[in-house]
Amino acid sequence: MKDVLIVGLGPAGISAAIYLKRSGVDPLLIGKDLGNLELFPLPIENYYGFPEPIHSKTLVQNGIAQAQHLGIEIKKEAVIEIAEKDSIFYVKTAQNEYLAKTVILASGKKLKSFSVPGFNKFKGKGISFCATCDGFFYRRKKIAIIGHSAYMKNELAYLSQLNQDITIFTNGETLDETFPFLIVKEKITKFLGDQKLTGIKTSDGQIYSIDGAFVAVDSPGSLEFAQQIGIIVEKGNVVVDKKYQTNIPGLFAIGDIIGGKLQIAKAVYDGMMVADDIKRYLKNKNK
Amino acid sequence: MKDVLIVGLGPAGISAAIYLKRSGVDPLLIGKDLGNLELFPLPIENYYGFPEPIHSKTLVQNGIAQAQHLGIEIKKEAVIEIAEKDSIFYVKTAQNEYLAKTVILASGKKLKSFSVPGFNKFKGKGISFCATCDGFFYRRKKIAIIGHSAYMKNELAYLSQLNQDITIFTNGETLDETFPFLIVKEKITKFLGDQKLTGIKTSDGQIYSIDGAFVAVDSPGSLEFAQQIGIIVEKGNVVVDKKYQTNIPGLFAIGDIIGGKLQIAKAVYDGMMVADDIKRYLKNKNK
Repeated sequence: MKDVLIVGLGPAGISAAIYLKRSGVDPLLIGKDLGNLELFPLPIENYYGFPEPIHSKTLVQNGIAQAQHLGIEIKKEAVIEIAEKDSIFYVKTAQNEYLAKTVILASGKKLKSFSVPGFNKFKGKGISFCATCDGFFYRRKKIAIIGHSAYMKNELAYLSQLNQDITIFTNGETLDETFPFLIVKEKITKFLGDQKLTGIKTSDGQIYSIDGAFVAVDSPGSLEFAQQIGIIVEKGNVVVDKKYQTNIPGLFAIGDIIGGKLQIAKAVYDGMMVADDIKRYLKNKNK
Repeated sequence: MKDVLIVGLGPAGISAAIYLKRSGVDPLLIGKDLGNLELFPLPIENYYGFPEPIHSKTLVQNGIAQAQHLGIEIKKEAVIEIAEKDSIFYVKTAQNEYLAKTVILASGKKLKSFSVPGFNKFKGKGISFCATCDGFFYRRKKIAIIGHSAYMKNELAYLSQLNQDITIFTNGETLDETFPFLIVKEKITKFLGDQKLTGIKTSDGQIYSIDGAFVAVDSPGSLEFAQQIGIIVEKGNVVVDKKYQTNIPGLFAIGDIIGGKLQIAKAVYDGMMVADDIKRYLKNKNK
């Protein structure tokens, strides 16, 4: 079991790992993609220390190399589920499961959105981001699951225990496995309905009658983890106390996900600060 | 008159300048030496973004280049005095005087110390760091001024209006000007006294009878500025509110000088945060 497991390979997670490592705690860093920073198109000019603007992807790669240079253990695996039982955290990736005494969520704020009509309108009105949270309400309805990765399969495994009337929408991606459900590979072009979701339209003009759509695209962001495990979220931000701890003891969150300035300097600062709080938490726990 | 004048070319000052510049305020950055970071012997491993440890001097030079790249005005001059009158700040360097509506002190915490016996013992008991503050109390005493730079000359000009019984100790450095006072060029080896300072011993074995010694070595650090202008200092840190403002309206302080973690990540964070506070202050002022 690890003392600290950090989810996210961006500035916040790496900074926390560096400060922990240098203070004698061996963290495990897990993450797959590089988050929003990788997608950020413009070079970064406002993070101190670089004479020329630096591309966000380069900066993130620098950070990972820096952690490796310090001997920090990194698993490039997509975290798909976080659960807690008896003060132990179970962090599931596409490949493995890891146990930890504390978890730091530093997985950023994924801008998960379909730029198709109806998506924003039906969020929370038929469109859900958490099978564990909302699956039960749709157990006698026609449901869709959107995605194609390990994360989708994990959510599907849960949903299929409740409901067999499932359609899988890969939204143009390919699926490397077969399932005993209808699989739609066309891109989604519209979410239909009046007060709530009633259907999904695809690029071939087909309309599918759907009551509930579960979005499980790529890998989950912190807000999806928050929903899985019951973290309090307000206005799209994970709520933490002054010590970066969420309402679940031992579960911390830093960086963009807790709001404030969505800046590298702030994420790095959070990482530095949370290291002290984690150390104090572990010390009290081990008493 | 500048809207914002920043004293200090380290991480805090440069970060503040970058955020101000990018939000439409043109700051003037002034500083001479690179502060403690330049003296820091080990490469830095814990500031996010660098795959290999980076030498502190390189990092500071990177920061200056970064500011220049963004078109920020930098004067490499030693600030020797800061005064305020009618809400205007007068910042004096060895070469010039600059006027500003707001000043950010980001000049770091200079580790100004003589590693000679008696120095710590007589700090505040005969050893002073501020001619303007303490000169008056020693106007009928035998005083020493220690230093050789423009800063020493500035302090000397003040002291010589009050007192003519002055000895200049260059502490091994050379002086490029003559003064109508006794000049001692030997190194100081001991501060003498019982309850308070009564003398200074030099490397040639000489003992000089001295009641008050004014330290004006190199250029002043933030604590010396604080004393000049009347900023509240507690436990060696400049006291600021949540908006980084000192007890003097329009005078802000960030980085090591305000305490907390003496870390680059914290200094950079302070710089980012104070930019907002300065903008708000200027907006209210210009109403």
